[in-house]
Amino acid sequence: MPDASPIKWHLAHTSWFFETFVLEAHAPRLRPFHPMFRVLFNSYYNGVGDKHPRPQRGLLTRPSMAQVWAYRAHVDAAVAALAHADIDHEAVARLIELGLQHEQQHQELMLTDIKHLLAQNPLCPAYFEGMEAAGIAMEPAGPAQVDATSLWLRLDGGLVEIGRGGDGLSFDNGRPRHRHHLVPFSMARQLVSQRDYLAFVEAGGYAQAQLWLSEGWDWAAREQIAHPLHWGRDARGQWQEYTLAGWQPLNLDRPVLHVSLYEADAYARWAKARLPTEFEWEWAASQPQQGGLSQLHGHAWQWTSSSYAPYPGYQCPGGALGEYNAKFMVNQYVLRGSSFATPEGHARGTYRNFFPASARWQFSGIRLAR
Amino acid sequence: MPDASPIKWHLAHTSWFFETFVLEAHAPRLRPFHPMFRVLFNSYYNGVGDKHPRPQRGLLTRPSMAQVWAYRAHVDAAVAALAHADIDHEAVARLIELGLQHEQQHQELMLTDIKHLLAQNPLCPAYFEGMEAAGIAMEPAGPAQVDATSLWLRLDGGLVEIGRGGDGLSFDNGRPRHRHHLVPFSMARQLVSQRDYLAFVEAGGYAQAQLWLSEGWDWAAREQIAHPLHWGRDARGQWQEYTLAGWQPLNLDRPVLHVSLYEADAYARWAKARLPTEFEWEWAASQPQQGGLSQLHGHAWQWTSSSYAPYPGYQCPGGALGEYNAKFMVNQYVLRGSSFATPEGHARGTYRNFFPASARWQFSGIRLAR
Amino acid sequence: MPDASPIKWHLAHTSWFFETFVLEAHAPRLRPFHPMFRVLFNSYYNGVGDKHPRPQRGLLTRPSMAQVWAYRAHVDAAVAALAHADIDHEAVARLIELGLQHEQQHQELMLTDIKHLLAQNPLCPAYFEGMEAAGIAMEPAGPAQVDATSLWLRLDGGLVEIGRGGDGLSFDNGRPRHRHHLVPFSMARQLVSQRDYLAFVEAGGYAQAQLWLSEGWDWAAREQIAHPLHWGRDARGQWQEYTLAGWQPLNLDRPVLHVSLYEADAYARWAKARLPTEFEWEWAASQPQQGGLSQLHGHAWQWTSSSYAPYPGYQCPGGALGEYNAKFMVNQYVLRGSSFATPEGHARGTYRNFFPASARWQFSGIRLAR
Amino acid sequence: MPDASPIKWHLAHTSWFFETFVLEAHAPRLRPFHPMFRVLFNSYYNGVGDKHPRPQRGLLTRPSMAQVWAYRAHVDAAVAALAHADIDHEAVARLIELGLQHEQQHQELMLTDIKHLLAQNPLCPAYFEGMEAAGIAMEPAGPAQVDATSLWLRLDGGLVEIGRGGDGLSFDNGRPRHRHHLVPFSMARQLVSQRDYLAFVEAGGYAQAQLWLSEGWDWAAREQIAHPLHWGRDARGQWQEYTLAGWQPLNLDRPVLHVSLYEADAYARWAKARLPTEFEWEWAASQPQQGGLSQLHGHAWQWTSSSYAPYPGYQCPGGALGEYNAKFMVNQYVLRGSSFATPEGHARGTYRNFFPASARWQFSGIRLAR
Repeated sequence: MPDASPIKWHLAHTSWFFETFVLEAHAPRLRPFHPMFRVLFNSYYNGVGDKHPRPQRGLLTRPSMAQVWAYRAHVDAAVAALAHADIDHEAVARLIELGLQHEQQHQELMLTDIKHLLAQNPLCPAYFEGMEAAGIAMEPAGPAQVDATSLWLRLDGGLVEIGRGGDGLSFDNGRPRHRHHLVPFSMARQLVSQRDYLAFVEAGGYAQAQLWLSEGWDWAAREQIAHPLHWGRDARGQWQEYTLAGWQPLNLDRPVLHVSLYEADAYARWAKARLPTEFEWEWAASQPQQGGLSQLHGHAWQWTSSSYAPYPGYQCPGGALGEYNAKFMVNQYVLRGSSFATPEGHARGTYRNFFPASARWQFSGIRLAR
Repeated sequence: MPDASPIKWHLAHTSWFFETFVLEAHAPRLRPFHPMFRVLFNSYYNGVGDKHPRPQRGLLTRPSMAQVWAYRAHVDAAVAALAHADIDHEAVARLIELGLQHEQQHQELMLTDIKHLLAQNPLCPAYFEGMEAAGIAMEPAGPAQVDATSLWLRLDGGLVEIGRGGDGLSFDNGRPRHRHHLVPFSMARQLVSQRDYLAFVEAGGYAQAQLWLSEGWDWAAREQIAHPLHWGRDARGQWQEYTLAGWQPLNLDRPVLHVSLYEADAYARWAKARLPTEFEWEWAASQPQQGGLSQLHGHAWQWTSSSYAPYPGYQCPGGALGEYNAKFMVNQYVLRGSSFATPEGHARGTYRNFFPASARWQFSGIRLAR
Repeated sequence: MPDASPIKWHLAHTSWFFETFVLEAHAPRLRPFHPMFRVLFNSYYNGVGDKHPRPQRGLLTRPSMAQVWAYRAHVDAAVAALAHADIDHEAVARLIELGLQHEQQHQELMLTDIKHLLAQNPLCPAYFEGMEAAGIAMEPAGPAQVDATSLWLRLDGGLVEIGRGGDGLSFDNGRPRHRHHLVPFSMARQLVSQRDYLAFVEAGGYAQAQLWLSEGWDWAAREQIAHPLHWGRDARGQWQEYTLAGWQPLNLDRPVLHVSLYEADAYARWAKARLPTEFEWEWAASQPQQGGLSQLHGHAWQWTSSSYAPYPGYQCPGGALGEYNAKFMVNQYVLRGSSFATPEGHARGTYRNFFPASARWQFSGIRLAR
Repeated sequence: MPDASPIKWHLAHTSWFFETFVLEAHAPRLRPFHPMFRVLFNSYYNGVGDKHPRPQRGLLTRPSMAQVWAYRAHVDAAVAALAHADIDHEAVARLIELGLQHEQQHQELMLTDIKHLLAQNPLCPAYFEGMEAAGIAMEPAGPAQVDATSLWLRLDGGLVEIGRGGDGLSFDNGRPRHRHHLVPFSMARQLVSQRDYLAFVEAGGYAQAQLWLSEGWDWAAREQIAHPLHWGRDARGQWQEYTLAGWQPLNLDRPVLHVSLYEADAYARWAKARLPTEFEWEWAASQPQQGGLSQLHGHAWQWTSSSYAPYPGYQCPGGALGEYNAKFMVNQYVLRGSSFATPEGHARGTYRNFFPASARWQFSGIRLAR
């Protein structure tokens, strides 16, 4: 899978981020740990120089895991030493905070990459059996109880405010706060469950062209896709799902995961609904919660129909950090919320995650609007 | 070029549109001209049944041109005969109007396809030498005179109305008229000229990664793109452009054409500006013209940064006609305005054209915003 | 199909061959008919200069058919005029003979290309209905009567002579005549018929990996191949074949056509036989005919297990003509005999035709050995 | 590189070979070490069942290296225990010998795979610095001294015997011994050196189409190849070679390695010679050595112009073992001799190695004939 990376690479890359953006600027006399690591562990920052091609990351037998841990320790120590240096501590704190946010993103990516990798292995290994016992969620929880008479939350819209303002941390792509006009709309209180999605599968949803975006229809035919990633049937035809704890019977109560935007959109059309825009999502999520939406955070990233684009008045930071977000603003779609694998403290109502319409290896699910 | 089609196919396909959407519904006793034409000349309507793959259209040596003209005459006569039939004339008139709009789209596509095809031919043939004499424009005109003190038009924005309302004809994707909030912005009064764009090329714009969307950078490297389509240098290194009248010295006064969204976006970043949203474009274009924008229509389609998506409250028509627009609403970008090749009467301020970000064989140009 | 060319191209290319190899050398004061035709109609002679890529030949709307006929007339007249010129008539005669042989090859290729092209067309047109009546064979004839007690011809082999000697015309690849040692072997007197091959298909031959070369097995899976090219089943499941006269019920008596080397080899293994080497074929074909092999010529080209390689002592001609044969001597396999579409007088017992192992659009069949 | 495999896979696969072909047949009550290993470590034996796709071998993070070593120990012990079992010891000995030969092949493949993998790594690691000191050759030795007056060995040929006879071990593809007729020819006493090949590179050999097979020319253009694999220039333009000991100045005395058949053939044409057939090679190699050929074994595998095909009278073994050799007999070319990395005792004068014409990651070199 050309989009996934080995764990060793994630660890080295997040260390590289601190070395490049914190230490190079604020500890300029420090020598690089290894001159080639700048290339090896650069993900996509053309401003930093050459980068090693992503599909070849799996071929890096060197440096060894031990060398990468040594790299990590070196960077950690150097960052810690900045506490006593004569530098602009406020500016450094902002960069360190950004580095930590970046690392939190990779913590989730490691789980999606591991899940994808293990699922390819004919041995079907589980990731770590003791993990759930240790309090680490392996999959999203089932739904809160819902009053069936009230599946939809109605909102009036109007001229609302979107995006992050003030001084608190946020990625540049969530700024500036600005006004947006919304016509009245409804949002589903719950995410689409695996039970809901199975009904779509069993009703032949994948075989009805009129439900699909043209590009999605071609994609599903070419990739021979007829159900979410990590679903399968056992020898008796029973639906199973591959989880980080191995293959399990399909848990119908949980939100559906591992669907592309194409699948989310087709499901919505079948359900006589649509996907929300990211503005509708953010506004609805900001309403007082009693009687409001459930499963906003900690279950699944939620596809929106909004392409990933700059907000009005968006300011791209200068230098290599400016490549962090803005250069991806074409042919990607925004997901809102957060998943069960998102590190605590990382989720925000204004957070804009984004992936191509065909991505399915993330913990991506569906919330309907209409 | 898998996106282009032979002229014979265009003629047959526009006839097929009338046969399928007008005659099948309102002249049900009429037999199809040929039972297989339904497949051969269906472009993308899954609701109508199988379709012939687009990249293979060039292989259709049969039916002959004479047979396609006979098909055309048959359809024309049958449509004309409806005038005296006992049918819902108002509903039929709407379908005929849609068929005519569809045919106007193909009139422009024929020119872009012809230009692309002839440009591949080492003989470098001109399309038709007498054409310009006959009053048919072969390329866009140069700029109106501009007061250099006023290159930008400033607009206040606020809560504006976008889209088509009322009863007049429009494609479904331009409806409904709805409110949209705009922050204050400026629009360039003129399109980017070939002189402007040449400066970008000669300043090494294609070699500076930081100017490019990540996907655009990879696209240009993979396709080895370093200037607009249909530009080239002659043996002495002078810039030339391939036009429908053959190769000509690059006309610096004309608007640049045949650029992808990636190139338009990189140019804008280089010029310390950006592309407008389609909403900014439509609002600016609707302002009274004295002192307003020039080159809105009749020169080049103008890339916007807006992905092609449904308007709030969009209603998709039922049946096969519903496939006309909505199924393409992913990974396409909106172009506004119209080109010198757009048939008279086809251009509108609310018209949403759309193509993938990599498309360059259309008459696509650039208007800046900031 | 990137291997096929339009008819207009064949006509121009065979004219180009005379212009380039006869007229340029022996009528040097003659101006080229068109300077770009040298590129457009060069198939693969790097020694002659640039060439137009084969897959784009179908895009050449210019020159028109009328211009190509004019080109042909120009070349014909100039070659005829050489009769009265003060030149080395013997050398010219050899080149003209080569040009005629080359043109005969293209006469057959035109039929295979036409058949392949028309078979793609959903209208399923026949090539020319009156052709067979005019005495032009559209498909190979059925078998001569065979005495079933004697399906195999046994030959002792030993040290035999292979290849063309003497002064008569032959392509360079058939020379020199040389000695080759053969162990005793048997050759099937008849070609494999469609009846024979259908038994293989219906016995599940395409689904038994152990019958196939590894590369052939992967090829059939990738291309989803489960029967010869131009076979199909009608709505009632009856086997049909697409012929130059359109779709017809499968004629079981005719030799099977349109199989790749992979299929021929798998069939042979299933039939507990093997393909002959080209040396076995040539030796067997040279035996006196009474009681010998039938269907040697005029039915189907016959795959051999011999890769296309130079004979011992092979001399490659100098210059561009040297590119005619030798440069293809890798990853191609030799076919012997000739098909029903081979022009009269073109077939020879020492003739070495060659195609890649995956080629099926030629009139290629199977003769077994063991 | 889809042709290369991780070391862990090689170790497991050679163990699997013994488990499958020795233990399953002769210790039937032994349970498989792990039921899925049959799939995971099957390279290409369709007769054994499903196999794991080669390009995905690098993704197998499980089983761990420790598990693979345990697998190896299990298989070793079970094979050793056969010594005391009541079985056909002669038949088992033949299978064990085959397993050992198979393992020797993988010993060399591990070195070629490691070299290829490390060469991709921007860190340019050496394989193991102490290895050469330990007496393990990292690259072929330079040439024996040659009397320059006698670079070519002349041989009369005639009717000679080729292949392996008798009872000794050999792979099936080297049998049976049979007669072959050779016309008189000459063989170069030495392999082509890096000095020789550099002259070809610097004379522009890669840019002269007339030297190349057509398919080779296209291959070199597509892959942008202009020198052997693992050659490069340093910052000052000096030629270097990547060896298992890291980057080194190009050793001009050593035989050239890592060339494809296409390159070997083009070099030969440039040197006004040709590649030998495998029959010429075997016959020349069998001549008494004083005054004969040097560098036959222990330096580089030597490309021949012979496609890999069955010998007359070849008998393919039944069952899965029959897939070992015969199924690759198309579009592969024979290499003779052996390289410096071939395990001692593995090289034989009748040994037929084979690879596709484009393969370069093996230790493949050139011996000329004429």
